[in-house]
Amino acid sequence: MKILIDAFGGDNSPDEIIEGALLALAERQDFTASLIGKKDIIEEKLAGKSFDGSRVEIIDAADVISCEEEPTLAVRRKPDSSIVKGIKLLKDEEEYKAFVSAGSTGAVLVAATLKLGRIEGISRPSLCPILPTLSGGKVFLTDSGANADCKAINLAQFAVMASVYAESLGINEPKVALLSNGTEDEKGNALNHETFPILKEMKGINFIGNMEARDILSGKADIVVTDGFSGNIALKSIEGAVKTVMKAIKDAAFSSFSAKIGGLMLKKPLGALKETLDYNNKGGALFLGVNKPVIKAHGSSGRLAFKNAVLQAVDYAWFDLKDKITERLALSGAEISR
Amino acid sequence: MKILIDAFGGDNSPDEIIEGALLALAERQDFTASLIGKKDIIEEKLAGKSFDGSRVEIIDAADVISCEEEPTLAVRRKPDSSIVKGIKLLKDEEEYKAFVSAGSTGAVLVAATLKLGRIEGISRPSLCPILPTLSGGKVFLTDSGANADCKAINLAQFAVMASVYAESLGINEPKVALLSNGTEDEKGNALNHETFPILKEMKGINFIGNMEARDILSGKADIVVTDGFSGNIALKSIEGAVKTVMKAIKDAAFSSFSAKIGGLMLKKPLGALKETLDYNNKGGALFLGVNKPVIKAHGSSGRLAFKNAVLQAVDYAWFDLKDKITERLALSGAEISR
Repeated sequence: MKILIDAFGGDNSPDEIIEGALLALAERQDFTASLIGKKDIIEEKLAGKSFDGSRVEIIDAADVISCEEEPTLAVRRKPDSSIVKGIKLLKDEEEYKAFVSAGSTGAVLVAATLKLGRIEGISRPSLCPILPTLSGGKVFLTDSGANADCKAINLAQFAVMASVYAESLGINEPKVALLSNGTEDEKGNALNHETFPILKEMKGINFIGNMEARDILSGKADIVVTDGFSGNIALKSIEGAVKTVMKAIKDAAFSSFSAKIGGLMLKKPLGALKETLDYNNKGGALFLGVNKPVIKAHGSSGRLAFKNAVLQAVDYAWFDLKDKITERLALSGAEISR
Repeated sequence: MKILIDAFGGDNSPDEIIEGALLALAERQDFTASLIGKKDIIEEKLAGKSFDGSRVEIIDAADVISCEEEPTLAVRRKPDSSIVKGIKLLKDEEEYKAFVSAGSTGAVLVAATLKLGRIEGISRPSLCPILPTLSGGKVFLTDSGANADCKAINLAQFAVMASVYAESLGINEPKVALLSNGTEDEKGNALNHETFPILKEMKGINFIGNMEARDILSGKADIVVTDGFSGNIALKSIEGAVKTVMKAIKDAAFSSFSAKIGGLMLKKPLGALKETLDYNNKGGALFLGVNKPVIKAHGSSGRLAFKNAVLQAVDYAWFDLKDKITERLALSGAEISR
């Protein structure tokens, strides 16, 4: 099984991406890493490193799409970019089972939607990261940014897809909540008012009602459904707040001599906490709803985060999410005809 | 100057509310506390306490609106509730300068909008809490929940009102950012796409462009403008994340003997940090855009938080926000005609 890896995506590419791929290769034996990007540079970076050469393939891609480029234009104009070339190979060649990139989110989503196509019956694919809860659980936040404007049918489909996804990771009858500005049934904006009764009636998901943003990390729901704008606000608000508090604690631990000693003694548990809460290190976000697995790793991924994203891609490649999503959609009655 | 205080609003009413009012009276001499609620109970709670009786007035209100009631219905059906009676007195009697409640947000907003009326030219009032930044600064988040569905003109007016408000608190040319899913000008949902060019062209505000939710607490902007649904998601995501991390740190500090000692040594700076980040303790959210000052304190306010909300009300009562907002609206060209 071959996993396509965009070696030229992300703030720390290509070095940390290549290192991450090698770490993933060392940890798991059941895949080949197909590194896409400027061949000479990849070869140069690999030189002298220890790895099983038969499990690494280099695919030359002369171009790179940067995060500053307008995604649709960039995808159209740069067929030789690592993103477009990778997605195209994923579509055309059966041996490639998944694509991982830490590059431009917009370009990855546009290329995946245009070239791989949507799963039958799906109106809009959704970006679905997994947030860690303190108790070691998982929360699926969908959509976290692929679709800034959504209709009720989109949210209904996000709920179905994330349910299938969560089940594939061993969560039984995952609890689905609708993100809202209050817990009462009648709370929400116009989109919520349309979506709530659909989720309530729909078969194939375990809908538990509205949820406030303050409860996202509580573990009360396994899946939090919302439009991509609100999901992005929630995700990044949490990210910013966690970062702010962790930095403040670091500063607090240097505020006096006794605090400094206290900080040293707390270093280990605080480090573990940071590790637990940093969803970026857990791997990437699955782009749910296109025909083959595409994983978007965080742009700031270092080697460990990227290693996890690659291993996640290997996992997804084994799951039969596509057929299961089609089946569940039919059961739910939320499929669209095209 | 009399400040109307809803003695029967909030999870900890009436005890903590009355205690908070007495603390505020002790701290500042320039106001009278007009406590509204069940007179016999208020008298009973005040009995034996030490305070200047000439600065406390009790206004009987037989009814209470609970947070579970549908706000519009409750306001219509309960004219003798502490919220409706308080807002009505604020409107009718010149001597009353502001109203503070920790009760049902919905009922306070509905009563204030219906009975006090909107400032001339304002389409929708907005709930505007102040979040603390780590560096001791302030961030005004508007709208944080009054209007789940908004139009571009609403957001433009939120920006104008919050600018006047921030200036009244000593912030010079406050930087206004539009909350979005990316920093580039073209990012956002349909509402943002309409709002961005209006904010960019508008006179009377200092617009700095789009801002991601992860930067809300960074201090890069003084004012973050968004619709009430997204604002609520942002506010509560931050609240939940901060609470989650602080709890986790507490747990971490009990994870081993050395961590326990470390936790003790860090207790003081961590306590200060908790104090800094807890926006609920900073006072209440001003309901910007109605004709007289209405302050919504957090439902979970204890005596200290409520004391701060009362002192904030006294401050607002001195500001001439209404006339300044009307002036600035005219300058900005964002006023509506009715």
